[in-house]
Amino acid sequence: MPSVGMVTLVGAGPGDPELLTMKAARLIQTADVVVYDRLVAPAILALAPVGAEMVNVGKRTHHHPVPQEEINEILVRYAQAGRDVIRLKGGDPFIFGRGCEETARLSEAGIPFDIVPGITAAQGASASTGVPLTHRGLARSVRYVTGHCKADEILDLDWDGLADPETTLVVYMGKASINLIATKLMAHGLQPDMPVLAVASATSPKERSVTTRLDRIEADIAESGLESPIVFIIGHVAGLAESRIPMRLISQARAMREAETFHA
Amino acid sequence: MPSVGMVTLVGAGPGDPELLTMKAARLIQTADVVVYDRLVAPAILALAPVGAEMVNVGKRTHHHPVPQEEINEILVRYAQAGRDVIRLKGGDPFIFGRGCEETARLSEAGIPFDIVPGITAAQGASASTGVPLTHRGLARSVRYVTGHCKADEILDLDWDGLADPETTLVVYMGKASINLIATKLMAHGLQPDMPVLAVASATSPKERSVTTRLDRIEADIAESGLESPIVFIIGHVAGLAESRIPMRLISQARAMREAETFHA
Repeated sequence: MPSVGMVTLVGAGPGDPELLTMKAARLIQTADVVVYDRLVAPAILALAPVGAEMVNVGKRTHHHPVPQEEINEILVRYAQAGRDVIRLKGGDPFIFGRGCEETARLSEAGIPFDIVPGITAAQGASASTGVPLTHRGLARSVRYVTGHCKADEILDLDWDGLADPETTLVVYMGKASINLIATKLMAHGLQPDMPVLAVASATSPKERSVTTRLDRIEADIAESGLESPIVFIIGHVAGLAESRIPMRLISQARAMREAETFHA
Repeated sequence: MPSVGMVTLVGAGPGDPELLTMKAARLIQTADVVVYDRLVAPAILALAPVGAEMVNVGKRTHHHPVPQEEINEILVRYAQAGRDVIRLKGGDPFIFGRGCEETARLSEAGIPFDIVPGITAAQGASASTGVPLTHRGLARSVRYVTGHCKADEILDLDWDGLADPETTLVVYMGKASINLIATKLMAHGLQPDMPVLAVASATSPKERSVTTRLDRIEADIAESGLESPIVFIIGHVAGLAESRIPMRLISQARAMREAETFHA
């Protein structure tokens, strides 16, 4: 029986392949097996060596994603066969990445694992729009929540705690529930004109963003046609987005010139 | 008069130089001027090309840090002289990094800027200890706050909102105030036995961590001798730290062997 392999959960970052960490890039470049999700950019997968086994768990027949329990077992099977596995996940494995379900199963099976953090979508959206997540005088704290819940459940969050005007609230996976979230936040005390920045496909070439406010979010998001994945940044800092766009455009133009070195 | 330069705020990550993003590494490797803080690792600074101007704003005569207003003006002066500046900051520039104060001043002066996000300390500590920041069933949300306040002020946070047992609370810069924070959280409803993981110098070779609970934090942190920078991870997820240490040790041993390639 071969000695057991190791599983490394690696964050692939928010979208832009250059926002991968150097450690993640090194591990992918020397990978034997890569188990990856739907949101990992092709340029990142292309870093894997010729001959690496690439396992896509983002979809299977009829476009259904592989259930989490099955992904857990795939990781265990490869490791028990003595293979070292890179488990590549969008963003950070330990922020809404279900990484903990995988490490719990690996622990149970006696398989060693390691974690490589990744830039999470909130940070990607913040950097590319120039909107800080914390700000002296505007936001003393930042909080990430998920708007996702099971089809048969009602989204039941700590609305009183979330409706804090001094905290930047970032909602992941919130497209389906953002209207409910905005209504609840207003009912629990946030001002209707609290700014909201919605960023779709942050840091990727498809990035698009819309600035709105809590009481207009339903109409503005519907009209914008923004598509998932979207992060919503709710709070006073989101009001800084408008004033900064000219600067960002200039800087992006320069960054694109510089990036030619990398992408060539 | 030369054309104006550009300032790029770059996150240097939590400590381990390999947790730098590829974009950050590329920008440092081609930098003309690097303005950097105290917590940036020497191995990261060593990426800068021979001849780059290295400006340390983490300390000056008599070990006083350069005031933020003066750092803002240093960035403006270099850019107005036509120099492109890499402004290198520990962690992520837009999470407790005072990056927004720098971009506000740059905007005002008409200087283009860009932001490159970095892995923040909470993510570094989470990955290296195997403790997830979110977890189905244990933590539906994660929140970062700073325990730092001015010498003449009392730390005045939204204690009711913070005392949410379903949210992982990460306290940055909290060594001086953690006893007050623990007392307030218990007074506002968190259980005295709520687990706390304190991680010093996360992801660096000096990393040390202690697992404790809210009602024992004062004694345990004092006894541990942990030194700043420390992040405190408060919440049910912190209770997972103990069970995972054996796995982590195995995986670290393997990771060290692999890392020889990089550090050689």
